[in-house]
Amino acid sequence: MKAAFVIFDQMTALDFVGFYDPVTRLKSMQIMDDFEWDICARTPQVMADRGLRFQADVIAKPLSDYDILFVPGGYGTRQLQHDSVFMDWLATAVTVPLKISVCTGALLLGAAGFLYGRRATTHPSAYKELAAYCHTVVPERVIDEGGIITAGGVSAAIDVGLHLVERLAGSPTRTRIANQMDYPYQPGQT
Amino acid sequence: MKAAFVIFDQMTALDFVGFYDPVTRLKSMQIMDDFEWDICARTPQVMADRGLRFQADVIAKPLSDYDILFVPGGYGTRQLQHDSVFMDWLATAVTVPLKISVCTGALLLGAAGFLYGRRATTHPSAYKELAAYCHTVVPERVIDEGGIITAGGVSAAIDVGLHLVERLAGSPTRTRIANQMDYPYQPGQT
Repeated sequence: MKAAFVIFDQMTALDFVGFYDPVTRLKSMQIMDDFEWDICARTPQVMADRGLRFQADVIAKPLSDYDILFVPGGYGTRQLQHDSVFMDWLATAVTVPLKISVCTGALLLGAAGFLYGRRATTHPSAYKELAAYCHTVVPERVIDEGGIITAGGVSAAIDVGLHLVERLAGSPTRTRIANQMDYPYQPGQT
Repeated sequence: MKAAFVIFDQMTALDFVGFYDPVTRLKSMQIMDDFEWDICARTPQVMADRGLRFQADVIAKPLSDYDILFVPGGYGTRQLQHDSVFMDWLATAVTVPLKISVCTGALLLGAAGFLYGRRATTHPSAYKELAAYCHTVVPERVIDEGGIITAGGVSAAIDVGLHLVERLAGSPTRTRIANQMDYPYQPGQT
């Protein structure tokens, strides 16, 4: 199983890293030895919304062969949803069986047509923009529609990462990884 | 006010980014216009514990002129605490008035002598190692000793970031930034 973590200029770093941490523990904690991933971008380096610079592993290659697509949010999404070069690239993920967004990453999944007819969520400040792309905006932290999972703003990245861990490896593994992350919280228990 | 975010090979990315996100919002949300920061490392690029690559802004320069020092944890700390080149560099932060760690970053603050006589915390798996460096290990999520703040494992990065926001800019600002991060949790409310 191989995941594509998409990164781009003006993304919010925590949208990405908050999801990346629990999910990549499936490999580092030897729970799923065949779990692999690439950091995928249009350019070799991206600069997040407050200047933090990340290196990509795979540059401007089609996304069609991955099993999981992950898209973070951030101010960059506002332009990218109308950027035909970026959107043509993201559209190569149409065949990826499981697509996941955090925060305004949902606008990119939406602009690619992946949310058509679906329930979805995003950062509370972007509910109205998301409504144009999906059937119903649901103001919850994680919305799992089977082939598409969307999450709320920024810090919801950790919760949807743990949600994916549970879906792929079961509830005891979710607990084990959350403990290793020293994460005592659960959505709905605030 | 200027912060040094120290990064290093084999750090845990979320230890760093979970703290970086709320704290840098002091600038991006125009709460403290004079809040600045550098990403500081011994090398131009570092690779975190699961392969994620970050670029540094300032390479192998003394840390003495910063107002805040931040040190994340991760497996890299186990070697670095005994690496005299790295520790000599970290020791240049002795004059920095506020030093903060997440997770096993506390072992690096400890190895530099900064925790001597203090209460401190770290990842629950490293309490025993930390005990050698401080007066008392306290199994809490955030321990604020004035000039030194230590936090628990990985995801405690967000909580200590919001703690610093509150200390620098007050409780209503903490709430405002937590809302913008879509973060509904508070330590002790699990």
